[in-house]
Amino acid sequence: MAKDKLIGVDLGGTTIKFAILTDEGEVQQKWSIQTNVLDGGKYIVPDIIESINHHLDIYQLDRDRVIGIGLGTPGTVNIAEGTVKGAYNLNWATEQPVKEAIEAGTGFSLKIDNDANVAALGEAWKGAGNNDDDVSFITLGTGVGGGLVANGQLIHGAGGAGGEVGHIIVEPNGYLCTCGNRGCLEQYASATGVVHLAQDFAEQYVGQSRLKQMIDNGDEVTSKIIFDLAKDGDFLANETVNKVAYYLGYASAMIANTLNPSAIVIGGGVAAAGEFLRERVEKDWKPFAFPTVRTSTRIKLAELGNDAGVIGAASLAR
Amino acid sequence: MAKDKLIGVDLGGTTIKFAILTDEGEVQQKWSIQTNVLDGGKYIVPDIIESINHHLDIYQLDRDRVIGIGLGTPGTVNIAEGTVKGAYNLNWATEQPVKEAIEAGTGFSLKIDNDANVAALGEAWKGAGNNDDDVSFITLGTGVGGGLVANGQLIHGAGGAGGEVGHIIVEPNGYLCTCGNRGCLEQYASATGVVHLAQDFAEQYVGQSRLKQMIDNGDEVTSKIIFDLAKDGDFLANETVNKVAYYLGYASAMIANTLNPSAIVIGGGVAAAGEFLRERVEKDWKPFAFPTVRTSTRIKLAELGNDAGVIGAASLAR
Repeated sequence: MAKDKLIGVDLGGTTIKFAILTDEGEVQQKWSIQTNVLDGGKYIVPDIIESINHHLDIYQLDRDRVIGIGLGTPGTVNIAEGTVKGAYNLNWATEQPVKEAIEAGTGFSLKIDNDANVAALGEAWKGAGNNDDDVSFITLGTGVGGGLVANGQLIHGAGGAGGEVGHIIVEPNGYLCTCGNRGCLEQYASATGVVHLAQDFAEQYVGQSRLKQMIDNGDEVTSKIIFDLAKDGDFLANETVNKVAYYLGYASAMIANTLNPSAIVIGGGVAAAGEFLRERVEKDWKPFAFPTVRTSTRIKLAELGNDAGVIGAASLAR
Repeated sequence: MAKDKLIGVDLGGTTIKFAILTDEGEVQQKWSIQTNVLDGGKYIVPDIIESINHHLDIYQLDRDRVIGIGLGTPGTVNIAEGTVKGAYNLNWATEQPVKEAIEAGTGFSLKIDNDANVAALGEAWKGAGNNDDDVSFITLGTGVGGGLVANGQLIHGAGGAGGEVGHIIVEPNGYLCTCGNRGCLEQYASATGVVHLAQDFAEQYVGQSRLKQMIDNGDEVTSKIIFDLAKDGDFLANETVNKVAYYLGYASAMIANTLNPSAIVIGGGVAAAGEFLRERVEKDWKPFAFPTVRTSTRIKLAELGNDAGVIGAASLAR
């Protein structure tokens, strides 16, 4: 029996997503379960094993056809050993032997990488990256993460911090970051970073603005509200989005002048603003991009949404 | 007969350097010839062929032991085709079928890449990079170039502009660069960039300084003179070197936060200032480097000097 199926697992703090794919990356089955983080997250790996075995039975998939399993996870991943630690939203503080356990419990080989890297692989393979060998991915959510594919391979670097694009410095002496440095992209382009910028702008602004009213009133303001107000023409909201786009443009140019990928793919919740954000980032990155880079690297929106994780995870197992 | 020898060729505007190496990268023979750029550089390839064939005869090296030839060249390289164009210091404006000609003339297979990339490979393999898989190289000369090795491979990118580290923007709206952008590293850390910075500082400075006197007198000032004066304690020269180190530190952190190499290796003529420059770059990059990067990436000086080119070129043929 020819092996032609991949299993992708996207492990998150609230849900675990699963998919069975062809070896060409076509999703054939998808399902998800809740993540049970109780008791130090000790049920997570057994739940993954049980869910895979159960669904292979449901779908009556011949196990001989499975090439392997790929898994994306939060935390710090030891790729060679297949262990994970410091995944605090899973309550995995200490090292977890994930690979060993899942391989024993399913009989399939497992490859593992962190969630942002896996999402990058997904977008590079089947999403905005068009299966190119050089694709960079920036994900804008609670934090700013990313994954960099060069010569068809993820960049991990000497200490595993390759692709930490959220910590590119875009404003020397700027906002203090959780990492201890000042001016990291994450402090300006994450969901909380966008709000922080808006709050600072509101303090200095004296004109008409619904956003300023909300902030002055102490209403809850989210990055989505700011983008929606900007689309409605609110001046302060637009100033905020322009600044976010500027920093994203600058960071994109830093990445692109280094790697010259065919695409810088922007995804994550904040990127739900879509073309409204993308076109501004594209305008702002141009003055910083080396001429050859400007014509050979494109700024694109992510295309796979929540499926990037399972697809990219599955690609690890190819 | 086992194949165990590599030939490396470092093609420059004034000399062509050659070496025969073991497949472990040990240089066994070195020689060089003048580059004859007359008549549109049409003698260059025949001269390379003749010199290789002649020296194999001199050294009585069995041709069956040669694995192949690697060549580093200025200009824009088409790696797949093995052609070079836009190498103006060789008078090669139009596309030159270098690979085809040298393979026909020597009987050996040839691989080719640009000179900065090849020097990066040399330092990564046998120099400061310690044969690690992730090494970044910045060369400070007339311009600022570089080469980036990730996962053991050179990064070329979608348009061949990967590793153009001289065009990382270190000062938005800064000095105008030959590439058309403003604030590129090359405008601050190349030999001419260092002098440009010193001239600007001299205009604003009113205190005692031998460097200021020289600039005000219209004496010829070089980057070497500036570094020498800084070592002697000249205030203005030290301010200049500090600013160069700051920009190098910032750019190094941008590269390192992206790639997390085991080393950022600084080479080229300006880096002849040695530890005097390196220690300042190291101090200045720290506030910009992500914590994991700060502990796993080191700022190092190049170790191979002029041999980096032939050694790196030879490594292409491995």
